Amino acid sequence: MQTLNIIKIGGNIVNNEERLDKFLNNFMQVKHPKILVHGGGRSASDLCERLEIPIKMNEGRRITDAPALDVAVMVYAGLINKNIVAKLQALSCNALGLSGADLNTIPAKKRSDGNIDYGFVGDVNSEDINTYFIRRLLDEQIVPVFPAVTHDNNGQLLNTNADSIASSLAISLAKKHNVQLVYCFEKIGVLKDVENDDSLIDHLTQDMFADLKQDGTIHEGMIPKLETAFESLGKNVQSVHIKHAKNLTTQIGTELSL
Amino acid sequence: MQTLNIIKIGGNIVNNEERLDKFLNNFMQVKHPKILVHGGGRSASDLCERLEIPIKMNEGRRITDAPALDVAVMVYAGLINKNIVAKLQALSCNALGLSGADLNTIPAKKRSDGNIDYGFVGDVNSEDINTYFIRRLLDEQIVPVFPAVTHDNNGQLLNTNADSIASSLAISLAKKHNVQLVYCFEKIGVLKDVENDDSLIDHLTQDMFADLKQDGTIHEGMIPKLETAFESLGKNVQSVHIKHAKNLTTQIGTELSL
Repeated sequence: MQTLNIIKIGGNIVNNEERLDKFLNNFMQVKHPKILVHGGGRSASDLCERLEIPIKMNEGRRITDAPALDVAVMVYAGLINKNIVAKLQALSCNALGLSGADLNTIPAKKRSDGNIDYGFVGDVNSEDINTYFIRRLLDEQIVPVFPAVTHDNNGQLLNTNADSIASSLAISLAKKHNVQLVYCFEKIGVLKDVENDDSLIDHLTQDMFADLKQDGTIHEGMIPKLETAFESLGKNVQSVHIKHAKNLTTQIGTELSL
Repeated sequence: MQTLNIIKIGGNIVNNEERLDKFLNNFMQVKHPKILVHGGGRSASDLCERLEIPIKMNEGRRITDAPALDVAVMVYAGLINKNIVAKLQALSCNALGLSGADLNTIPAKKRSDGNIDYGFVGDVNSEDINTYFIRRLLDEQIVPVFPAVTHDNNGQLLNTNADSIASSLAISLAKKHNVQLVYCFEKIGVLKDVENDDSLIDHLTQDMFADLKQDGTIHEGMIPKLETAFESLGKNVQSVHIKHAKNLTTQIGTELSL
């Protein structure tokens, strides 16, 4: 099977033009076929603030009401996605921005979790992803660029976590490709001490993760990211790495294994 | 040659959900292959106002500075484009939103006109349009949906008039299709008296247009729209109609001829 590289890039890189440009130059070194998935980080929150749209939270999770969804769509699927696509085209990479609504690539279900209303947040089931056109695009040397926006296939756009999109794409495409999934962010990998790069865990098994989660070494946003990552490993994705964006083409980072 | 329908829809339809839904239902009746081009009307100006971005004008033309461009990209290529795509997908139309940067479909040149700086406004030359992938998409029964955003192929997004995008697409695709171009807006066609639908000109020649322009009957925004439309007729586009969005599938409207 052919190797497919799926790279997810976090908001702290995407929000900074210099870091983004460096990352995109590294991304150009990654072999075809490849897919880019991007978050948007603070930029949607910043725009909500400027528009005086209150950010609603429920137990640490943001509630995406209608105005917040509009902002997410504008920032993720509009501003960030189109700027990345234009920058990649300038580097002679034939990029194509695809929200989950475009070509119905990523249908999602509005999250409903008992009594908590998360608003217009969508969860993706990897089995629902329409891999046909994604594969056709990859065959044409086109590079799909996915923002954190999906739809319910009933006319409603949904905000969907970019880590989950990357993982779901990886799982769905692993049936016909050797998928190598890389999560890039602003740390050099999974760290025992978040302040100390020397504490990098270069190889993390699921058992180690369970222990480090229990003793509090791994905490906060890293937990769902790693859970999502391990899930994809359990579903035929060949490899998962967590790396600093600047180290995309190097060996430096954390490799996960079951 | 196969008939290709290119429909441009104006901002006053796109900004109103009820009118947009009605239009999209009509659009579903239009035969494949087809392309939708949309403006954004007041919505970008509204967002500029909310963000307190001053709208800069020069001799009646808006200057698109960097903050205004970001808003145009967010609103046109993000919010409006993705909502239209999601609504079309819900109607089982396989829509794909494409800014001019996506697949490098529409490269443009930043407008430079002597001493006047228009900012990040792009002009399209129909010969630069990359018809290869557009045709491939049409062959797959995919419906491209273009917002009023292009790029300079050097990493810079540009705001481009949606009428011009529709006309340039029509001209470039007329080499291999019988292109029927329809401009939809909120009037029933070209009117002698803008307040009176009974004054509809159902057939407008280029000579009539010249006369009506000279005596002031046709004025303001209608002039560049019609000039763009006549230009496409002169370049092998088979037919050009100007219609109310609600009349898309009817004969009511103005047909242009040379």
